[in-house]
Amino acid sequence: MKKIINNVTDIEDELLDGLVAANPGRVKRLGSQNIIVRAYPNKNKVAVVSAGGAGHEPAHAGYVGYGMLDCAIIGKIFHGPAPLTVFKGINEIASDKGVLCVVKNYKGDMESFEMAMEMAQGKGILIDKVVVDDDVARSKNALGRRGVAGTVLVHKIAGAAAEAGLSLKDVKDFARLTINNTRTMGMALKSCTIPADGKPVFEISEMEMDLGIGIHGEPGIRREPVTNADGIARKMLDKILTHVDYVGNEVVLMVNGMGATPLMELLIVNKFAHEYLFRNGVKVYDTMIGNFMTSLDMAGFSITLMKLDNDLQIFYDAAADTFALKK
Amino acid sequence: MKKIINNVTDIEDELLDGLVAANPGRVKRLGSQNIIVRAYPNKNKVAVVSAGGAGHEPAHAGYVGYGMLDCAIIGKIFHGPAPLTVFKGINEIASDKGVLCVVKNYKGDMESFEMAMEMAQGKGILIDKVVVDDDVARSKNALGRRGVAGTVLVHKIAGAAAEAGLSLKDVKDFARLTINNTRTMGMALKSCTIPADGKPVFEISEMEMDLGIGIHGEPGIRREPVTNADGIARKMLDKILTHVDYVGNEVVLMVNGMGATPLMELLIVNKFAHEYLFRNGVKVYDTMIGNFMTSLDMAGFSITLMKLDNDLQIFYDAAADTFALKK
Repeated sequence: MKKIINNVTDIEDELLDGLVAANPGRVKRLGSQNIIVRAYPNKNKVAVVSAGGAGHEPAHAGYVGYGMLDCAIIGKIFHGPAPLTVFKGINEIASDKGVLCVVKNYKGDMESFEMAMEMAQGKGILIDKVVVDDDVARSKNALGRRGVAGTVLVHKIAGAAAEAGLSLKDVKDFARLTINNTRTMGMALKSCTIPADGKPVFEISEMEMDLGIGIHGEPGIRREPVTNADGIARKMLDKILTHVDYVGNEVVLMVNGMGATPLMELLIVNKFAHEYLFRNGVKVYDTMIGNFMTSLDMAGFSITLMKLDNDLQIFYDAAADTFALKK
Repeated sequence: MKKIINNVTDIEDELLDGLVAANPGRVKRLGSQNIIVRAYPNKNKVAVVSAGGAGHEPAHAGYVGYGMLDCAIIGKIFHGPAPLTVFKGINEIASDKGVLCVVKNYKGDMESFEMAMEMAQGKGILIDKVVVDDDVARSKNALGRRGVAGTVLVHKIAGAAAEAGLSLKDVKDFARLTINNTRTMGMALKSCTIPADGKPVFEISEMEMDLGIGIHGEPGIRREPVTNADGIARKMLDKILTHVDYVGNEVVLMVNGMGATPLMELLIVNKFAHEYLFRNGVKVYDTMIGNFMTSLDMAGFSITLMKLDNDLQIFYDAAADTFALKK
């Protein structure tokens, strides 16, 4: 394993300091904890909070700022933060208008937020949550679909709705609408390597790829011979289109790199995705291409569609000023 | 070699179509040529043009738009475009106020621009050029220093100066000042693989790294055992600081991924870079972290410093609206 790091135990600490150093007027760290909050919190609005393990950079801390998150709590690599740490973040940014937690559908994240929310309620904080489950790969799993790259769109919409002064109930409703309208599928040519393990999470040959991977090194639901970009993207879009009535509607398309995927390859996927969606009667309102929700040094990509109905387009277009997303 | 592509011969074509599909209101392609111009060109200002091989995405086409480039001409992977193609791009966006060409210091790029500029002058176009040579790695080469990631800052400053209505002479002067004030050094853990070749440009063991790599798969000037992030960044910054009087001045710091480098690693480098620069009396005015000038799927990074003097800070902060850089 070759990585540009120092001590394996310092990775989370150092990457957060590196993020704050690059964004001094935008975010700050809460003491020495792995909690990133806005440099100047606005307490006159619903606060939007997200959390997750490290290894998904720029998620989640890179989305703290105007128009998106008020706070991100970061755990160790691929492990959600402890309940008490989540509570500390919530407690720091809680406003009288309430707190909305954006939770990805994983057992650990769900449990951490549940306990943290109980602590917050014990202190009289008005708090609620939404659970993101956009990944179409494992929809029949007992825990339901996983939360993956679509989480970034939930941050965007909920953050904009909160910034517009909406109530906790209304911000939650728009976040839920986003979740209902958003589906993702991912693939990988190469697994990621967790620094503390020092070897790839799964082995995969030079001739094969994994379809339906997760963002924590989970192997795909199917291993297949590598085909070309168009063939791969077609399979993923075929599957995504079975989930929501995208056909005949306007969507935001996100082509997301998993961490070690050259932009060249994402652009080639994007070309096909636009052609495919046009042929299938799906109108692309806007396209996001880049590394939004990654999985360390995994080589691969995911495709996300969000159907724009109701006022989602307004909140999607609303101003945002974060490290990783500017509007 | 595993890559998310279709036919090797279609890569440049497809990535440009993918870029345009994601930015319909911002850029367009000139017919079926590998030339990207602004969707609505402004002919009342100096036009700024850049060119280069494919494989550096988002450079160069990703910087076309308000506040940066008017046109980017793209060649095959790691090969600058032909003189006639460069001329066609120049001819398309030429304004009465003139054209400034931003040329990276490589033999092929220099020759293409020289011939294209002759053709343009033959048509009565007012045209001039600057040559970017920010790479400190090979400064004693007969051709001088190479042009690498600092080129993006030249696009930014020259583009903003042009947008502000300055004359060709003045835009050129600010571009030259940027070049004089900007130095870069790069490193790689892993070579890139040119799709048509199907194998890495250079082999490097699991214990080694290359310091002083180029952006076209050129191996480093030194091969060394892999050390930690801080040790690597220190060596690069030590070298950069010998070139310009950064000490005692304000700088823009760019930590640039080479294509397959996780953001986590760039953030860790950034933490050290800020500490190092503070200790050495260099004040960081702003930090850019991401994939700005890449080399296909090379794993590694470069560090760039630009000293802010004269009005460079004004032009650095000025609005920009491009696919890859927004201000």
